[in-house]
Amino acid sequence: MPINPNANIEITAFRWVPEFAQGLVRDLRVRWALEEAGLDYRVRLLGQERPIEYLKQQPFDQVPCFSDGTVQIFETGAIVQYIGEQSETLLPREPQGKYRAIQWTYAALNSVEPAVQHRVLLDAFYGGQEWAKLRKPSADEFARLKLKRVSDRLGDNSWLEGDRFTIGDLMMVTVLRLANKGQLLTDTPNLSEYVKRGEERPAFQQALSDQLAVYAENQPQPEGATA
Amino acid sequence: MPINPNANIEITAFRWVPEFAQGLVRDLRVRWALEEAGLDYRVRLLGQERPIEYLKQQPFDQVPCFSDGTVQIFETGAIVQYIGEQSETLLPREPQGKYRAIQWTYAALNSVEPAVQHRVLLDAFYGGQEWAKLRKPSADEFARLKLKRVSDRLGDNSWLEGDRFTIGDLMMVTVLRLANKGQLLTDTPNLSEYVKRGEERPAFQQALSDQLAVYAENQPQPEGATA
Repeated sequence: MPINPNANIEITAFRWVPEFAQGLVRDLRVRWALEEAGLDYRVRLLGQERPIEYLKQQPFDQVPCFSDGTVQIFETGAIVQYIGEQSETLLPREPQGKYRAIQWTYAALNSVEPAVQHRVLLDAFYGGQEWAKLRKPSADEFARLKLKRVSDRLGDNSWLEGDRFTIGDLMMVTVLRLANKGQLLTDTPNLSEYVKRGEERPAFQQALSDQLAVYAENQPQPEGATA
Repeated sequence: MPINPNANIEITAFRWVPEFAQGLVRDLRVRWALEEAGLDYRVRLLGQERPIEYLKQQPFDQVPCFSDGTVQIFETGAIVQYIGEQSETLLPREPQGKYRAIQWTYAALNSVEPAVQHRVLLDAFYGGQEWAKLRKPSADEFARLKLKRVSDRLGDNSWLEGDRFTIGDLMMVTVLRLANKGQLLTDTPNLSEYVKRGEERPAFQQALSDQLAVYAENQPQPEGATA
């Protein structure tokens, strides 16, 4: 397991998040990529109130950030790509394979995630609000259309570009896990199977279990409990 | 001007779009990057009805696609990054500079564009619908918060990482042009100036004028007009 308090690579993560978000927070993507690449890392935990200097590292006040002594960057797309460059397992070296993988990383984050996230948050965050109820049918249709496009393209393949798992699959699977949580994969059984294939990878299992372990350790005490 | 019918590089673009979208369609990003890099390209125009085979090239049925004999890819983030790799002007070579530029490319597309696009489309596409009216105040606030984060980070700098224009700026400026069209930059004058700096670049001017020229040439005739 690549968690190592003396590692060069440091990522940031939240100390604790509410149950709905557990297993979905974005440091999972980076943990997963690091496990696939076999790179040691340490984790700097942040609470709900971040120190103001954190904005210098992450102007959107989100996790994760990544540093390794060579680069200091944020945005999971960029971080996962950077890790990919250090591991031929995740990112092919020849231009077509490399840029196809990068293309799917962007597609997951720009062509699929916004529609899925918008639909899922209608229930998760705005469930009681009138606009969310009125919006739901059209948002549902739009998210399912995007997912249908990915499903048609994937077809019977194991991964988006055939037999080989890349950073593009890593990113797409994390986006589709959110869709799955929102029951949006019911029309596209090949995407459910694709998510399952991703989740069965040992590197994913390790990353998820390491993220969840932090939340379990830092579970807030019920009000009124004494130390 | 790098448009050249015999160029190796081919991109796809729409033959015509309604006025609201003119100057915002995503092939503009790729045209701009190609102009900055001084690379010749040709354009394959597509109508409202794409041939079904186009989905093999672009599974989301969008423009642009890019091919140059070495790679065939879609997603503007990936295409602009690929062009960047061929031009040190757009993408520094050393790891920190390179990955900071890539980080901002992802940030534009994943941390900023979804909030801005959601807000702008409330008026542009869903203006008459009840949910859109109810949603507008919170969507406005969320988009402005994201823009404030970019504004705070940019500060008095010319470009996101200081003095040097990169693919990250190219992508962020195109996203902020949409925000500007939706009157979302009124609280952040440094972002208005930043957009202006981007739009003043000769490469941008050429790219925009080439995109608009296609629409002007293919303007639909009013109904009832005879050939």
